[in-house]
Amino acid sequence: MADSTQLIYLVQRRLDDFVSSRHPILSSISPDLGALTDISRHFLSGGKRFRARFSFWGWRAVQSSPGPNAGPIPAEVISVASALELFHAAALVHDDIMDNSDTRRGLASVHRRFETIHRENQWRGDARGFGMASALLLGDLLLGWSDELLDEGLAQVSDTASGAAARDHFNLMRTQVTVGQYLDIREEQAWANQPEAEQLDSALRVVTYKSAKYSVQAPLIIGASLGGATSGQLDTLSRFGLPLGMAFQLRDDLLGVFGDPAVTGKPSGDDLREGKRTVLIALARQAMTAQQRSRLDRLLGDPALGTGDIQQLQADLQGCGAVDEVELMITDNVTLAEEALVGADLATDALVRLRALTDSATRRSA
Amino acid sequence: MADSTQLIYLVQRRLDDFVSSRHPILSSISPDLGALTDISRHFLSGGKRFRARFSFWGWRAVQSSPGPNAGPIPAEVISVASALELFHAAALVHDDIMDNSDTRRGLASVHRRFETIHRENQWRGDARGFGMASALLLGDLLLGWSDELLDEGLAQVSDTASGAAARDHFNLMRTQVTVGQYLDIREEQAWANQPEAEQLDSALRVVTYKSAKYSVQAPLIIGASLGGATSGQLDTLSRFGLPLGMAFQLRDDLLGVFGDPAVTGKPSGDDLREGKRTVLIALARQAMTAQQRSRLDRLLGDPALGTGDIQQLQADLQGCGAVDEVELMITDNVTLAEEALVGADLATDALVRLRALTDSATRRSA
Repeated sequence: MADSTQLIYLVQRRLDDFVSSRHPILSSISPDLGALTDISRHFLSGGKRFRARFSFWGWRAVQSSPGPNAGPIPAEVISVASALELFHAAALVHDDIMDNSDTRRGLASVHRRFETIHRENQWRGDARGFGMASALLLGDLLLGWSDELLDEGLAQVSDTASGAAARDHFNLMRTQVTVGQYLDIREEQAWANQPEAEQLDSALRVVTYKSAKYSVQAPLIIGASLGGATSGQLDTLSRFGLPLGMAFQLRDDLLGVFGDPAVTGKPSGDDLREGKRTVLIALARQAMTAQQRSRLDRLLGDPALGTGDIQQLQADLQGCGAVDEVELMITDNVTLAEEALVGADLATDALVRLRALTDSATRRSA
Repeated sequence: MADSTQLIYLVQRRLDDFVSSRHPILSSISPDLGALTDISRHFLSGGKRFRARFSFWGWRAVQSSPGPNAGPIPAEVISVASALELFHAAALVHDDIMDNSDTRRGLASVHRRFETIHRENQWRGDARGFGMASALLLGDLLLGWSDELLDEGLAQVSDTASGAAARDHFNLMRTQVTVGQYLDIREEQAWANQPEAEQLDSALRVVTYKSAKYSVQAPLIIGASLGGATSGQLDTLSRFGLPLGMAFQLRDDLLGVFGDPAVTGKPSGDDLREGKRTVLIALARQAMTAQQRSRLDRLLGDPALGTGDIQQLQADLQGCGAVDEVELMITDNVTLAEEALVGADLATDALVRLRALTDSATRRSA
């Protein structure tokens, strides 16, 4: 999506403008609320903008003749793409609280920022508690705002039915990703009480709802709905987006264990220290010897794992065949995504772009 | 609002139906999501339904001839009232996380419920962390749903402008209460670094945004907007709702310190143990002797405060004149509320009802 530069610039501007439009409400209440807009603005800068980009390509794919020199991107497309990013920012703020993460995109996470404000001002009481509560509220604020930004976008759509369809898909996405996250944290605690055979299904379900639908399929469908997609076009994009999203996440899971720190920006084997119950792990637990499995169960999720342990686990995961199985699943999913586009009733330039995306999912580095 | 029995029944049914309408989305994803609908349903039962009732009376006040035997309450009025309650439930779930509260309405708080699920199933890992994360996500889910329920209600409104106005006021309320809560938690930590003179202003600001607007004024205005209120009617209800809401909260603050446990359902002096920075406390810190003030600062917020300390603080708060000042503020606010209704262009039965409400705020018991 190299040519999305313009889109990303426009989304950033829309997000900045939106926060600026809400600033007067806050500043009229109290000067002490400056931190909320400052931190929002900062947190809304950057990121890969995957969801904005997929919603844009979903919209573009159902335009009859966009052509290389098509007019400017309509305001409603930018607003809806920006609303997805605003929602995502809210989810990340809450995510970082749940994971107790110190950083996000290389900078301090929102709850840590509020902690710092507390400490720098030498306030009384518990800086950590203040950081958590403030971030929770800021996440709530951004959730509400994502909704308002979406409505501002939909209000500009001339076709009421298209706007309503986009809103319905947005609502469904919101419910699905939230319960997907719940399943993810539940899984991390409950997996050991589950029959072995169900662990793979559970892990696949988390990938489906927390990643594949949320990051790829839903944005495509929301954008396409906004663009007045036919049911056939929606069906095509659904059948394309879900396996592509699965492939992306499965690739990400492999990189989380085997990725080059210089490329991923995270320490090697980071997912092993975090104890993520990925599809890779579920497959490995089925395929491993009893000795390997008990080693995995003992080490996985230990934040103090050293290089030797990491290398041992990496060797076990390779050796038992689980890595090959995940590679196969990626290939299968990419094939499904590609097949969905064969003979598709979608705009030519979008088709080229969507096909190129499937290549990037098959790549073996970040 | 004794005759709101029908309204409260209808709101409860609407909330139950709404959760039931979302259940299939969850059950189609995983049987493990049953806890989310069960806990939602349970948490959405009961409560005083203040916001539902005020939105109803706001709507009713601008109907030209409701009369005692007016027709059934329109579906959109029930839906909007229910959306306010759903939003409030979400806010309470998050509130209880922030306050680390064990109970809500005499039952276990949502994060404690999830903790119990974790313990009863003997899952691995940290039950408290799981409880917090699950409740955070459930709150997010309910926030999104409150939005959908509101839209379902507004879709039934024939007058588009009324629906849009109700939505705008809902959005503003959402932003205001969220930042009001932020100011509240900020105040609890930052007050000691503030000039004395600003502490009262800060406490009044928290009451305004976290309580008076959120619980009374905004619901009235949202209901009235839905009912097609004129700008004159909105102005009247605003001028009535804000001081009434202030009076209610100030009365609540007094009850939190002096209330009879048999009536309030909370231990006597509970707000003193919690360390709430109320208007009463801000006034007291201005009026007290140096000795009293240092005692207050030392004891306030100590969860282990005994009966003797509580009684001493109660005597100090009385003795310094702060209690009388708060009583005076309540009277002044009630007067303002009553004056707003003089000659008001509102339906007669609603006027009678709204006037009766001002009486209940002046009562000196719960």
